[in-house]
Amino acid sequence: MNLVCTECGESCNDSSSAWRCRCGAPLDLDFHPIYDFGCFAGREPGIWRYREALPVEDPSAPVTLGEGGTPLIESKILGRRLLLKLEYISPTGSFKDRGASVLISRARELGIERVIEDSSGNAGASIATYCAAAGIACEILVPEGTSPGKTAQIEAAGAKLVRIPGGREATADAARKRADKVFYASHYWNPFFFHGTKTFAFELVEQLGGRPPEAIVFPLGHGSLLYGTYIGFSELKRLGVINTLPALIGAQAAACSPFHHLHRGEVTLDSFTAGDTIAEGIRVTKPARAGQILRAIKETGGLVVAVDEEEIIEALAALTSSGFFVEPTSAVPLAAVKKLDSAWESVAIPLTGGGLKAPEIVARLAKGITGNSNCG
Amino acid sequence: MNLVCTECGESCNDSSSAWRCRCGAPLDLDFHPIYDFGCFAGREPGIWRYREALPVEDPSAPVTLGEGGTPLIESKILGRRLLLKLEYISPTGSFKDRGASVLISRARELGIERVIEDSSGNAGASIATYCAAAGIACEILVPEGTSPGKTAQIEAAGAKLVRIPGGREATADAARKRADKVFYASHYWNPFFFHGTKTFAFELVEQLGGRPPEAIVFPLGHGSLLYGTYIGFSELKRLGVINTLPALIGAQAAACSPFHHLHRGEVTLDSFTAGDTIAEGIRVTKPARAGQILRAIKETGGLVVAVDEEEIIEALAALTSSGFFVEPTSAVPLAAVKKLDSAWESVAIPLTGGGLKAPEIVARLAKGITGNSNCG
Repeated sequence: MNLVCTECGESCNDSSSAWRCRCGAPLDLDFHPIYDFGCFAGREPGIWRYREALPVEDPSAPVTLGEGGTPLIESKILGRRLLLKLEYISPTGSFKDRGASVLISRARELGIERVIEDSSGNAGASIATYCAAAGIACEILVPEGTSPGKTAQIEAAGAKLVRIPGGREATADAARKRADKVFYASHYWNPFFFHGTKTFAFELVEQLGGRPPEAIVFPLGHGSLLYGTYIGFSELKRLGVINTLPALIGAQAAACSPFHHLHRGEVTLDSFTAGDTIAEGIRVTKPARAGQILRAIKETGGLVVAVDEEEIIEALAALTSSGFFVEPTSAVPLAAVKKLDSAWESVAIPLTGGGLKAPEIVARLAKGITGNSNCG
Repeated sequence: MNLVCTECGESCNDSSSAWRCRCGAPLDLDFHPIYDFGCFAGREPGIWRYREALPVEDPSAPVTLGEGGTPLIESKILGRRLLLKLEYISPTGSFKDRGASVLISRARELGIERVIEDSSGNAGASIATYCAAAGIACEILVPEGTSPGKTAQIEAAGAKLVRIPGGREATADAARKRADKVFYASHYWNPFFFHGTKTFAFELVEQLGGRPPEAIVFPLGHGSLLYGTYIGFSELKRLGVINTLPALIGAQAAACSPFHHLHRGEVTLDSFTAGDTIAEGIRVTKPARAGQILRAIKETGGLVVAVDEEEIIEALAALTSSGFFVEPTSAVPLAAVKKLDSAWESVAIPLTGGGLKAPEIVARLAKGITGNSNCG
């Protein structure tokens, strides 16, 4: 397998542990496996049922904690029938476990003994937990003010937790400064991570009887699920399993919506400034793979939607009062659905992270809207 | 289906909403379905793949949030190779979702509009969440001091949360006083709950290629998982799917171990007094089904083991530093394993509840033991 630059095309061997190209752009994995999608059907659920499609040398002994195989539930919420994929039913409570399992499996194969990662919380909790399972030392940088549930997960896994003042970008800068000396297990720079999240696409196709939904709406921060899903569907199209890619739609909090502005051609990343949002998982101002992700959205006929904080809270209350206990970030796509063309009949939404990541905040926000609607 | 008293044998129709016999003893469900266990193999994971085995009239439209289908992972921890069944990878983060899905499905079939439940937290969070999914009003009584994560789940689901002073038994008393007027969705009195948790046995047999493990060690409070598992294995034996029941072993915190004392014939329930334990999920002094559960343990060649707080903390740290982020209650069986005869080769342990239920407590306890063992 080679790593190939997404901008200048230069390539290097994947064992180099380079985390970006010399030109500064992100790297992709030049990995195009050929396999029979039908052969997966009889296997145990989880991402490693797709082992022939995953970029590791020995898929028989992965670092796994039972990630993937998440339920797909059809539900009518806020007046619209949707396919909800419950990604929070996962070892650490978020979809990030798909990516962490593949990335840390590969790191262990490469003999890596120590990694660093920066995260708003979910990716850090996931990388720390999989490093614990793999016996790899781990240092996680998080922005000051990250939810205690997420930082507790990181510390319980035995990782070193470092709180960085100054927000998400300052945390990323601090990690990048260390990344030339320590293996950078980044959920947005490292392409192996995306080859874990691509299994989200595989599962959807299996669960829907061989076809993708018409559209999928993602909470969009660094795009680690959206872009992985794009890779997954692209693989399936190349193999002839599906004919068309579903429209991939990014949902952002209006207060922090670089993709929304870029998509409309309004700003450049360097000039973008952001406000605060309760959707802490996508509080990202400088997404590393902005160009790639915008191209994927365009190619699939998707778009980027921005929603207000009030709309996020309304969507959150609708979800929790229907039994889907998620964190605020996971409510952003539902808020965005209201603004979509209703021409798409089958629309899927990943519920990316569980409410137990920040339970008291979720309860307070949800109660503010619903009162105690369900009690007698 | 009839409800049959476990002591005097009197029976009544299951739609009566009686929560115990007139003689005061618990009721069991007289339900012995005949089905082909092999026919489940090709279906989607989750408890409703076993629908022919579940006591509802219309299993095609259950109240489900994707519960069950939990991973089984073989791991060497504290020097012993174990089969860990990750029950915390579940909609509300605990195995209770298996029982809540069946119980609330049945309640909706019966036209119930309002339920009450008492819980140390996990069962309450689960019943509240499934009531939200079913559109049933719900009131949950919890002991003062229940972990904020659990109470937040209850409130976010729109249930009415009532904190009762005076500990777990005072909470149960308060619920029983209301239970003649409101449907009592109890995870230890209501037999439908146990017909949800019995799917734990079915999954183990499927995952182990048609055979049960030799022994299973449970955290033992009210016994809602142990006794459900007993029902499940008993069904499979009756159908000829398995030949022998595995040894069912109850693990208790020494500070609160009524089963341990009863098993040794040392006390009666009325005379039992208890101290405090970090295993809040099994802080139960007066288990409703003590007689039944002791008989099940004896019939299967099992036993009851009590462990100290220090042993629980050591087991907790061993689990979290291996990537299994669980609540303290879930560490009790691992602590107990050290005291077992090593003649059992295949020993399974359910990891019943996730660490996100009380993340800061878990992180503090785990760090106290391991330091930052995994960091560089």
